[in-house]
Order: sequence, then C-alpha cells, then structure tokens
Amino acid sequence: MSLAEGETARVGEVDDSAVLCEITSGGVAVLSLNRPERLNTWAADIATEFYVRIDRADANPDVRAIVITGRGRAFCAGADMGSVSGANTLADGDPVDVGAVIGDRPPHFLMDLRKPVIAAINGACVGIGFTHALMCDVRFAAAGTKFAAPFARRGLIAEHGISWILPRVAGPGVARELLLSGRTFRAEEARDLGLVTGVVASEDLLAQAVSYAEGLAANCSPASLAQIKAQLTIDAEGGMDEATARAEELMAESLARPDVIEGITAFLEKRPPRFPPLA
Amino acid sequence: MSLAEGETARVGEVDDSAVLCEITSGGVAVLSLNRPERLNTWAADIATEFYVRIDRADANPDVRAIVITGRGRAFCAGADMGSVSGANTLADGDPVDVGAVIGDRPPHFLMDLRKPVIAAINGACVGIGFTHALMCDVRFAAAGTKFAAPFARRGLIAEHGISWILPRVAGPGVARELLLSGRTFRAEEARDLGLVTGVVASEDLLAQAVSYAEGLAANCSPASLAQIKAQLTIDAEGGMDEATARAEELMAESLARPDVIEGITAFLEKRPPRFPPLA
Amino acid sequence: MSLAEGETARVGEVDDSAVLCEITSGGVAVLSLNRPERLNTWAADIATEFYVRIDRADANPDVRAIVITGRGRAFCAGADMGSVSGANTLADGDPVDVGAVIGDRPPHFLMDLRKPVIAAINGACVGIGFTHALMCDVRFAAAGTKFAAPFARRGLIAEHGISWILPRVAGPGVARELLLSGRTFRAEEARDLGLVTGVVASEDLLAQAVSYAEGLAANCSPASLAQIKAQLTIDAEGGMDEATARAEELMAESLARPDVIEGITAFLEKRPPRFPPLA
Repeated sequence: MSLAEGETARVGEVDDSAVLCEITSGGVAVLSLNRPERLNTWAADIATEFYVRIDRADANPDVRAIVITGRGRAFCAGADMGSVSGANTLADGDPVDVGAVIGDRPPHFLMDLRKPVIAAINGACVGIGFTHALMCDVRFAAAGTKFAAPFARRGLIAEHGISWILPRVAGPGVARELLLSGRTFRAEEARDLGLVTGVVASEDLLAQAVSYAEGLAANCSPASLAQIKAQLTIDAEGGMDEATARAEELMAESLARPDVIEGITAFLEKRPPRFPPLA
Repeated sequence: MSLAEGETARVGEVDDSAVLCEITSGGVAVLSLNRPERLNTWAADIATEFYVRIDRADANPDVRAIVITGRGRAFCAGADMGSVSGANTLADGDPVDVGAVIGDRPPHFLMDLRKPVIAAINGACVGIGFTHALMCDVRFAAAGTKFAAPFARRGLIAEHGISWILPRVAGPGVARELLLSGRTFRAEEARDLGLVTGVVASEDLLAQAVSYAEGLAANCSPASLAQIKAQLTIDAEGGMDEATARAEELMAESLARPDVIEGITAFLEKRPPRFPPLA
Repeated sequence: MSLAEGETARVGEVDDSAVLCEITSGGVAVLSLNRPERLNTWAADIATEFYVRIDRADANPDVRAIVITGRGRAFCAGADMGSVSGANTLADGDPVDVGAVIGDRPPHFLMDLRKPVIAAINGACVGIGFTHALMCDVRFAAAGTKFAAPFARRGLIAEHGISWILPRVAGPGVARELLLSGRTFRAEEARDLGLVTGVVASEDLLAQAVSYAEGLAANCSPASLAQIKAQLTIDAEGGMDEATARAEELMAESLARPDVIEGITAFLEKRPPRFPPLA
C-alpha cells in the first residue's frame, strides 16, 4: 500500500481529527477512528466526523472502495460510557442521552453507500463498533481481536439493528447465542462462525485490507459494485421471483452502460479493465 | 453444578414423572425427559408434563434460564410410533392420530418463552426431538450423538415447523440436503454445519450446559434476555429499517428500567451485576 | 453406478446432443452438458436441450432423482461470450442479445421441479453455471474446482437470481464478499463457506453423486421429496406461524397417501421401503 497525501492534513502536520482519511494511489479511502486513548468508543465527536468523511469518500470519483479501521489498540470498544454519564459512574436516575452518543445515523447507512466498505478490525470490536463492522461489506480482523455484543450484560436491548444484521451474517443460531450470552469471543472464532472473511497478523492487517480494496478498485466496475450492493440489500427480503424479475430489468439497463462492453472486451483480450468512475 | 431440591420430588422419593424438573442454586431449571425405556420418544405423557413444567419454570422468578435434556441414551428419538399405532406395526388404513402424539403445541412455542432455553442433547435427537432442539436458543451435544430429520424416509412431510427453523439455523443449503436425504449425522458434523454451539464429552455435557445457563443467569439482565429473544423472533422477518426503528423504541423503553443503570454501573465498577427478576 | 441404456442414443452410436441423458438402474437421470470444447458455456443449444431433458426426467416415473454434470474439464464456465457477440471481441455498441444466450427460463426453475436435483460439479463453475448449481438441492464438487461469480468484473449486475440464492445458501456475509470481489475460489473453500456438501476426488465425483442420488431414490418417498422441496421454497419467506400451520395441513394430507403407512411399517420392520412413484 502506498498512501497518497491524505485529505485531512498537510505534510508534516499532526492531525488530531476524530476520524482521519487518507486516499491511496489505488483508489481506496482509508478512514481511521482516531481516539485511541478512549479505545475509539463511539461518541458525538467520532460520529460527526465519520459521517462527513465517509460521505466525502462515497462522493469522490477518485475513491472506488473504502476501508474503515481504528488507531491504537481498538477498532471501536462500544459506546462511550463516559459521554453517556459525563462521569465514570452513573447515579441511579441519571438521564441517558442516547442521541448524543450514537450520532444521528443508524449503522445500516453503511449498506446504503454506493461503494464497497471493508472493515479492518485491528482490535476490540464491541457493541455499536461490532454493529458498524457487521454493516460493512467485508471484514478482516487482526489475530486475537476480541469481539462482543454485551447488550444483555448491560441491561440493554439488541441495539441499532444488530438483531437484524447479525442473524443475516452469521445465521440465527449463532446470533441468538452471541446476543443472549453477550460473551467475548476472538477473531479466530469469528472466522469459524462466518463473521469475518479473514484473520491476519496484526502488523499485516491494514495492508491486507487495503490490498483487497484496491483489488476491487482495479478489477470491478464501480457501477456494478453499486448495483450489486443495492440488489443484495433489496433481495434480502422478498421472493425469488421478484428478485429474478428485478435482475432481468437491471441487466437490460446495464447493457446501456459502457461498462459491459469494456468488461467483456477486457476479459476476452486478457487485459485489466478500464471502468469509468461512478457518476 | 449443585442441584437444589427439585420441584418435583421430596428427598429420597423416586420420581417417575414423564418430565423431571430440578432447579439449581444458580437459577437454572433443568427439565429432563424421563421415558428412557422408549428413548424419550414424544407422546402425550411427555408432552403434557413438558408444557406444565416449562410454563412453571418460565413463570418462576427464581429461574433465569432453562436447560432441556433427556434421561438415558436418547434426548428424544422422534415421535412415539407405538403410540401412533397402538402396536408395533401398522395395518394399511389404520388411522394415525397425530394430535395424540405431538401434543397441542407446535415446537416453536419454545421461541416465545421469555427465558433462554439451552438444549443439552445427550443422545439420539430425531424428528420432532430435533425440531424441539432447533427451537431452543442454544444447543450443546454429547460427542457422537446421532441426529436425523428422517421425514422423507417415512413418507412424511417436513413437520411442525422444521421447514422454517432448519434453514434459518443452518442455512437453506444444509437444510435442503438434510431434509431431502433424511440421513443420520453425528454431533461433530452438526457442529460443523452450525447446528450446535459445542460438542462435549458425554459425562461433561449436562454440567457444561448448566454452567453456560448459570452464566446467563448471573451476568445477563432477565429483562434484556426476554427482549432480545422477542427481537430476534420478530426481526427474522421484515426489513432493516423496521428492525432498526423498533430497536430505537425498545431502547428508549429500556432506559426506564433499572437494569441499564445497574448494568453500566456494574461494568464501570468491575463487579457482577444485580439485575431484578422478570416481573 | 451402473448406467442403463440411455434415453438419448442407441448402443454403439455416438451422441452429439448438447445435453446427454442416461438413466441408471437405481432410478437416477444423469444429465451431462456436452459442449466440452467450449467449456459447456451456456448458450441457446445447451439451454434448449437442457430444458427438454430435465422436463422429461421430472415427468418419467422411473426417475426419482436427477444428477447434473458436465463433460470435459468444466461444469459450465458461464455464458458463452462467443454467442453474445458472434466473435471473440465486442465492438463498442454491439447489441448484446441476452435472451439468445441464457434461454428463456431463469435458473430457479430447478427449485420448482418435483424431484431432487444433485449437482456433480466436475470443473469450472462460473457465472450462470454457478447460479444453476446454487439452484440445485445438493452440490458435490471435484477437488480443486474453480468457482466464480465475476459479474462485477464484467460490468454486469448480479444476474438471474444469484442475488437471491447466494445469500440464502452461504449467508449474506459470504455472498456480499463473493459478488463484490468477483474473485475465483476453489472447491475446498466452497465447502468451508457452506456452498457444497462434499468435495470428492475428480475420478470419484460422478459415482459419489449418483450413489447419493440413488440413496434418495431407494430410501425416500417421491411424494415426500416433492412436498419437502415445495415447503422449503415457500417457507424461505414468511413467518414461523404460517410455516407451521401449513405443515399441519400438509401432514393431514400426507396421512391420506399410502407412503406414510409404508414408511413407518418398513421402519418398524427394519426393511427398505417400497414407495410408489410420483403420480
């Protein structure tokens, strides 16, 4: 991976933004949660910055895929309890301002982006951090990383759509067991349960995730990626007949785009394709 | 596991009930199917007793989780063929009184209970026994245990909701193969197929299942467990937007319960939580 | 496997049909795509012949299960690009006549057949070939076989229902990763991802698939198989209550068929069942 000059800082300047963004020469935006001292726990500062950066990446024609990771030891260790209470303990009866903690977008907004989103889970991936990871299209995790959905242990419910996405990624049997027990499990078990595509040595994780994302950028039509993401979201519900009928319509539309001719010609000529960016 | 005095027998008395119930000091009700001489095959006697015992456990504030197991060599070897025919062979044309065999509740009533249900599958888990196990929240099995859904081999259909639950636990690819072939498979394959969470040596199985259930009882809010079970059942259908919107409402409701403050405070104080029982 | 005289050729005659059909003495129709020189890529000739052969197999009372395989090195290497363009490269603007390539049936017609369909994936299984394989009830693959869903790499969309079936066979997490990347993967990974039931040495593949299919033919009620296939398709959507209620109705109907008495009697007498063919 060679990182081009980032969006967020001039050379030599230290960037203290809550979320950093660098764009690689291979067309990948790398967003890093940057509050390592509090394990990148989710709070208003990270949320606000995250939405700005990722919308900009999704709109930027130089970006064809997005990687999300965390600086320091954690990916995201859940909601920031400090920012829930303003202190380290909660007096009985304290109001909990949830909106202030989680931001104003439910995590599934990630599924509505047009570009593929890859999670590079570098460390603790807990609660809303886990839900965000599950809403990404692909997940890689550093060896030994801890995961948990500890809602039941905090007196909470299955928050922010995890009761929808977890059964759909890992199957309802696995989802039930993880959400009811709230237990901690490691990256290796996450892979066996189908929650992550690959487990990678910590020092290689980001390079691997960026390389995978650059592969999507180099080989795949941005229009196709956007369309396939949308199909998978829609076809998660509804029947086979509808899904197939919709595919026939979308295929007819796709034939009007230059991407099909380029994709098939490149394949037949055994050369890399040159697909146009997303409009 | 230390078993407290059971509900169903006085000390020194032999209990011949079709289903036994003991409550552990850790807040777990252990229900044991108790017709080992006919491999706990499902019939009116077991069904009737099972519904009574499990309703009582679900209502008992001292019980926070439920374990289901079988006495003897089998968990439940299917419907009792003897009670179907009143004999060991069926004359062509004999009426088959299905209601008399399976009881009046479809197995999915287990998913509607408020408390988590753990299956400790000690031996043969076949037909309606397998369906009941699939409707539990978590499954452990003794090494080598035989499973089968042999409906096609008996001229039957996919009964009592197994055509709904099996694809949702193991995926439709696995479900199709197991339901069409009706073949027998072992606990180890069941684990690889995602059907059970753990395979345990036979002599350790019940202790392991009870220990897991006592962990839920000790660490998880009963209100959260009930709510998460209900969410997973509802969100098995319907879209991401609905599920997320429902979660926001339920979260707001949960903030009015004492469990959230206790859960977060205990977490921050690094001590076990003290959650109230279910109302 | 002993192959009885085929439907499609007289003894000693070479059959150049695009799809061959042989019926084994064990009641299995083996359909082989027979355009090895173009890797059995899907085009009008194969499609037309395939529909005729498989409808005939589904209607033939001597056939109780169907195996699909390919002659030569490939199972089916996708749509025939040659037949798309009439040449090996596409000039920008060439019309692409999709109907001419894929035939007039969406691949999910395989799920609507009454008899179980087993894919014996002998080699490259790509694009629409992969979609057809996914619509089969059970899949075995030769060791090392290459799979891919390279739609995004060709500027295409997720075609012909693969956006519906792939998440439902392998889970949405796996489906997203495979459809967005369009990468090639091997039979061994396909098994780990839950896409195939078994990986078999190339030279044993067809025998294994036919033996499995003959097991269904020998042990399972044709009426039950048809009914269970239909249940799984219907119950893929909709709720648990509906599925269970439908199962109760279907069970009542099934008790009017001779299959139940035969199935249970054979079981109790420990002899193979003798089920009637499908009406």
